[in-house]
Parts: sequence; C-alpha cells; structure tokens
Amino acid sequence: MRDYPEFPEPEGWTSISAIQRGEHDGQRVKVRGWIYRTRSSGSIAFVVVRDTTGVIQCTVKKGRAPDEDLEGAKKALLESSVVVEGQVAEDKRAPGGHELQATGFEVLHYAEPFPITQDQSDEWLLDNRHLWLRSRDMNATMRIRATFFGAFREFWDGKGYTEVQSPSFVRDACEGGSTLFNVYTDDDSAPLPPGAEPEPGTPPSAQRFYAYLTQSWQLYAEAMMFSIEKIYTIAPSFRAEKSRTRRHVSEFWHAEVEAAWTHNEQMMALDEEMLCHLLDRVLENHEPELEQLGRDVAPLKAIEAPFERMRYQEVLDELNNMGFDLAWGDDFGYTEEKALTAQRTIPLYITHFPKEKGFYHRPDPAEPKSLVCHDLLAPEGYGEIIGGGERVWDPDELMARIEEEDLDPESLGWYLDLRKYGSVPHSGFGLGLDRALSWICGADHIKHVIPFPRTMRRTRP
Amino acid sequence: MRDYPEFPEPEGWTSISAIQRGEHDGQRVKVRGWIYRTRSSGSIAFVVVRDTTGVIQCTVKKGRAPDEDLEGAKKALLESSVVVEGQVAEDKRAPGGHELQATGFEVLHYAEPFPITQDQSDEWLLDNRHLWLRSRDMNATMRIRATFFGAFREFWDGKGYTEVQSPSFVRDACEGGSTLFNVYTDDDSAPLPPGAEPEPGTPPSAQRFYAYLTQSWQLYAEAMMFSIEKIYTIAPSFRAEKSRTRRHVSEFWHAEVEAAWTHNEQMMALDEEMLCHLLDRVLENHEPELEQLGRDVAPLKAIEAPFERMRYQEVLDELNNMGFDLAWGDDFGYTEEKALTAQRTIPLYITHFPKEKGFYHRPDPAEPKSLVCHDLLAPEGYGEIIGGGERVWDPDELMARIEEEDLDPESLGWYLDLRKYGSVPHSGFGLGLDRALSWICGADHIKHVIPFPRTMRRTRP
Repeated sequence: MRDYPEFPEPEGWTSISAIQRGEHDGQRVKVRGWIYRTRSSGSIAFVVVRDTTGVIQCTVKKGRAPDEDLEGAKKALLESSVVVEGQVAEDKRAPGGHELQATGFEVLHYAEPFPITQDQSDEWLLDNRHLWLRSRDMNATMRIRATFFGAFREFWDGKGYTEVQSPSFVRDACEGGSTLFNVYTDDDSAPLPPGAEPEPGTPPSAQRFYAYLTQSWQLYAEAMMFSIEKIYTIAPSFRAEKSRTRRHVSEFWHAEVEAAWTHNEQMMALDEEMLCHLLDRVLENHEPELEQLGRDVAPLKAIEAPFERMRYQEVLDELNNMGFDLAWGDDFGYTEEKALTAQRTIPLYITHFPKEKGFYHRPDPAEPKSLVCHDLLAPEGYGEIIGGGERVWDPDELMARIEEEDLDPESLGWYLDLRKYGSVPHSGFGLGLDRALSWICGADHIKHVIPFPRTMRRTRP
Repeated sequence: MRDYPEFPEPEGWTSISAIQRGEHDGQRVKVRGWIYRTRSSGSIAFVVVRDTTGVIQCTVKKGRAPDEDLEGAKKALLESSVVVEGQVAEDKRAPGGHELQATGFEVLHYAEPFPITQDQSDEWLLDNRHLWLRSRDMNATMRIRATFFGAFREFWDGKGYTEVQSPSFVRDACEGGSTLFNVYTDDDSAPLPPGAEPEPGTPPSAQRFYAYLTQSWQLYAEAMMFSIEKIYTIAPSFRAEKSRTRRHVSEFWHAEVEAAWTHNEQMMALDEEMLCHLLDRVLENHEPELEQLGRDVAPLKAIEAPFERMRYQEVLDELNNMGFDLAWGDDFGYTEEKALTAQRTIPLYITHFPKEKGFYHRPDPAEPKSLVCHDLLAPEGYGEIIGGGERVWDPDELMARIEEEDLDPESLGWYLDLRKYGSVPHSGFGLGLDRALSWICGADHIKHVIPFPRTMRRTRP
C-alpha cells in the first residue's frame, strides 16, 4: 500500500468513457481505477481497469513499462486500486475498442482475493452488497437512478412547482396503521403515545415512544399547499410491509406532488406527460447502461401518452374473466396486477377505486361509492407505480369520512383545520421511484435497483 | 361553499407577482388565492388577496362588480378562498403598487374566523404550524429553501458528481450511540438486535427491534464511492439530540458529498466554492424574500472565498483568551461557536480536530493526535454548518481506530471490507441544510426554516 499519494486536480485525469469514445486516440493519458479483469504471461500483462464511466484494457509490456510496474501488474488481484499512464491506441479486439499501452502502472493498494466470483446467489450478493455495488450492473443502475431522480425534479421545476420537505416523524397514519414503524428513544422528554399518561417513576433510560415513521407526505403536503400551491418532494417513506413480493421494500424513495386548484383529470394529464419525460431522459442518457442490464429498450421507446384508462369495475371484470374471483372492494395485489399488465405494453390508468382506499380521497359525487382517483400501472407485469387523485375538500365530507373509517378526529384535528379556512379543490399523486426504476431497468426484483435495499428481514449491511 | 368549480388550465390564471411586476397593466386578468387582509365600507370593499407569489389589493365596488359579489367580499373573513376577475391598474397607495379593479369576486369557501392574529407566541405558532405556513414569512422561507436545495444539486451535478441514496434504516452508529433512534415493528420476522437470540414463545404482536435511524450516510457513502467515485445525496438524518439550543432538531436534511482520489485540501476548496454558489443563487432569486424576513443581505453579499482557516488548537487559545476554560479534546458546543463567530463576517474553517471526533476520520500522519478534517462555521454567531475531512484509508489503521474507540469490529466488518480491496484516499463532508438556511435567513431558531420542525419535545402537528 502506498503511503500517501498526491492526486492531481480532477481535470488531471482522463475518464475511461472519453477514451472509449475515441476522444484521446494517440494521446498520452492518465487514468485511475480498479482492476476489473487481469491475465498475464511472462513479459506482458493485460489488465482491464474500471472507473465510474467504463472499462479499458491496459497492456503492460516489458520494455515499455518499467520492470517493477510489470511485476506489480502481474501480482495485483482483482479490485486492486491502480494509476495507469500510457498512450491510447485503437484496438478492435479490446473491450470497447481501445487499449491503453502503459508506460507506467502503479498499484496503489494490492487487494486481498475478492470474494465475489461468478454464480453467487442473490442472498449472498445482498449480504455483500457493499462490494457488489462495484459491479458494472450496480454501477449502471445507480447512474440510471440518478438521471431518473433528476428528471423528476426537472419536470416539476419546469411546471412552476416548488420543492418542499415534509417530516419523517409523524403521529398520524395516512395509509393504514398496520404498516407503521414505531420510533423509540431513551430520552425521557420525548412525547408519549396518544392518550398515554406519564408513568411516575419511569427511569430516564427506559425506551419511550417518540413517533411513527412517515408512509407518505400526504397530510403535510395539503397543509403546505395552502401556502405554496404547487409542490413536490422526493424523500424516503417507510412501510412495515408484510407482503414479500418482488416489489416490496420497507423503505422506499417516494416522489410526491400536490397542487391547489387542480382536478384529478388535470393531474392525470400531468402524470402522463411526466412519465414520458422520465423515459425520454433515461433513454437519451443511458441506452448503453440499459443494454448492460439486459433491458430491451424497444418497449420503453414505444410508450407515448395518452395511456389506456379503465375503471376499477372494468378491471374487476377483466380479472374475473381471466379466472380470478374478485368482488367490489377487493384490493389488487401483486398477483392481480401482474396478470393485468403482463401482456400490456403501455401504462394503464385505473380510476374509480372503492372509497375504502383512503379517507382523504374525494368520493365521486356522481357515484359516491367510488373515488375521483387514479392508479397508474406499469406494463410488462410490473403493476402499480403511481397512486393519486383528488382530495376531499369539503370540511363536513372529510369529517364524515374520518368517522366512517373509524379514525381519531382529535388526532387529525390539525388536518381537519385545513378545510376550515378557505378550502380549495386539489389533487396530487405519489410515485414509487424504486418500483418505477425496476420496471425501466427490467429488474426481476425491486432490490436490484436500490443501493442498500431494506426489507422486513434485512437491515444489513 | 361552491359545489364543485371547474378550473382553467394553469395558464388561465395570472400570478400576482406578474401583476406587481407591471406585466399586466391595463389588462383584464383572473387571479385566485386567499384573503390576506380586508376592510370595507358601504359600497366598497378593499380585499388584499395572496397567492404563492405575492399579495394584491382587489377593489370591489358597487356598480362595477355585481351586488352579490360585493356582499360576498364584505362578508368573507381572512383566509377565505376566492377567484377574482378584473382590470389591473397602477396605484401607488396599494401594497406592491398595483390594484385589481374587480368586475367579479367569487368566494369559493367562506373561512371560519382564522385563529392566527398578531403577537402569538412561538409555541402557539408551532402548535398551529399547519396554518402558520400560510404566513408571508413561511412562504418566503419555503421558497428560499427550495432554491437552496436546488442550488446544491446544481453545483455538484456541474462538477460531475452523481446523486445516490443511502439507507435510513441502519445497524451501526457512525456519530456515537447516544443520539440513535430505535425503530421497532410488530412484525416477528424483523431482525433481532445484535447478539440477541430469538425468544421462544414471543407473541407475534410484540414490538421487535428493527433498526436504528441513520445519523449520516457516511459508512454507506464510502461503499458506493468505490463504484461511482464522486457522489452526493440530500436526505433526512435523525439524531435524538439532548441539546436544546436554537440549532438542534431531531430530524434534519443532510446534504453529503464523498469523492474518491480526493484529499482534504481539495475538498475544502470545493466546499468554499459551493457555499459561494449557494449564496449567489439565493441572493439572485430571493432578495425580496430575505427582506420580508428582515434579513440584512449586505453581510451575505460580502462573503467570498477563501475563508479564514484556524487549527483547533488556535481556536482553543482564542476561546480561552475570551474567558472560556477549555482543554485539548473538549468539544465546541453552541456557546463556544457562538462566541467564536459572533463578530466574524465570513465563514471560518477549523481543521486538525482531536482524533476522538470520529473513528472514520484520518489521523494526520504529521501529528497523529489530530485529524485531517475540517468544520466550517457560519459567521454572525451561527456556528457549525459543515463537518468534513479525509477518511482513514489504510485497513490496519482503520482497525486500530475501531478498537481504540471500543466499537464492534464484527458489526463494522462490512465497512472494514471496503479497505481490503483496492483502498484509495477519499474525502467528503456533510452540510446541515436547515442550519445553513437559518443563517442565510437570519432566523433566531432553526425551527423557523423548517415547514414541520421536530424536536425531542415536538412531533405534532
């Protein structure tokens, strides 16, 4: 291990992708990275080096590079960190079409034998996620992910929406109590659970309930909307999901939008436009990465608005025709949504869900057992990625819904307040970024598109 | 309350700020918003209406507007939601310099008497935060906040950094165990705490330990860095802070950066450049909002790089000269940092902190009791907003530090792994966005710049 190398400013390095794009043919360059593959015979070593942007074969040859550099190149194992200087040459046989003819090959740190080899199980790779992130697949996924997040913000910024943040610590459930995580602290000044009286003599070191973790920004968004009108956020949401499907994690990145003076139909048109924008940005920037992941991009390229629309009742009928046995009020789970979307090629809107979906959704005045709402299902078997709709704006109707759902009007008093002072129609939606990405990347499990995925059984590493 | 109004597309409305900028003088426009102030006499009502962008006086006059509209305007209380149509006229006496001569004034929802009046206590306003957000001060703060978050991303995107996300659920403390929040769930498949054996017969409904909440992305960032090299994130961090100062909350938005092949000095130069960029963007876009908040912008405009630099030992001496009684190893709390920065006008870097600051910081080879690190303190009494530095990159040195700090090498095994396979020097930092904003906005408490602030005593509304 070298003691403490100096590094030039970022501009002093050449990125491997720039070399592979042919921008440095014949030039002397300096790259740094990690050994991705290596083989050698007596007087020559072929070392493929990776950096963030790509891989390149470095040829270290006796006579061209110093002898000790060749010895180092032959000795260094996979994932050793290296600094390579040399001349760029086109070479059709080399991966990417270029090679670096090394005149200097410095091993910064000789790696121990890298534990990840071929054919390891998903579980093993999750146990070693901190190392598996170095794979080209995870590298590609993380870069697509960054573009996806950025494109979401770009779209809503462009529409005049303002980014805001809602709290992670909350005291009211907005998506049902069964998936709430409970946060405790040993701080004895923490708030007590609703209704609880302080217990005299409780030692300060006892664990005290502090708050739930947010499932969605919904209730808070509606408060902020009265000030900022058109808002969005990207933040983690938390759900102790009992479902163990390929699309459930306990912590997910949630992109949410809310807008005053906006009806469900207007919001659906915006959702559609947004999703097309997100696809465009990913396809513009990441076709090679999608290819790396084995994703056929043709179906993604074929998607355009408007999307197909069905009412909940029509979806029930279609599913029952396929052999399901569903009645009004039944939820669609992973199985139903998979069946529904497996043969579809463009996203599907489902509207008019039963009003039991959630107390804050606005019942349809024309058909009060249904809501003025929309889910958006990704095609190719992926299912729900967006849930949205219009919110109850009449204070009396909201109170009736809270009572109907047997929720606590006292705890929700602040939320009821929002309708007492100049209520306005408003709509919004939430997009599960990880779910949408798993569709776009063609992943067979949502875990594959999250750097450190969390499920009910996994919180490490 | 009107039954169910239709709304034109967003383009059908005129924003109040556009009117106040003089872009619609003499034109007929349609605005919507909430009543901000109102007074009337027999045949005329002066109703100041607010939207996200500003306020404007609407004059509703008998003969020009229908009689029932005038009656509505006279009757409607503060915060009632309204749609106003009329002609724009310059009027030097009106707030902002323009008035809207209403030909139509529709009250969408008549508000109940709004509970927020003048001279209410901070605590009362926090209890009613969901309504207080409608104030011009909170509106201005949230808009400055959005620009600040966006400018951070813009800066690092421009430097070739990639946005990534680290998990909120973690199993290792990186900033000391005393501020950890504990997450529990009633799911009996949740992981047990380190070392615990399953208790036979534990009922499934019992609360089981699931994870801690993240204090910083640090350990995870270093894993991702080996794949993506230059990364940043913006995400909530959680600390059960016992300190009750004007700068502590239990949940804060944390902007963090990590870069491979980068030394502390290089990172400090980037921090400086970034902070100047953030200030530029806020000043370019929000002078009126800062004025609204009573913030003197002159000191912000005067800030430029390079910032002042002192070593920890020099700071100790300066503070002891001021009457403090500090010894090597003592932390600087709010009191010390306030004293240190109250008279300063530009940010102050402190370097060479004692190595007890954290196990992952790199000790200075020239002076091993100190770290190769930096804190950045905001001037005007605000104190620390950035903590950063270089990380231990030698595997043996990291193991020694873990043992020295009495941490669990088994639990941190995955983090130790990162140094076994091609370790490289790397640096990074974390910026407390809320703290930095409270300085930029001139707030006397960090709570004033967060829509729904959380402290150990407050998790509602």
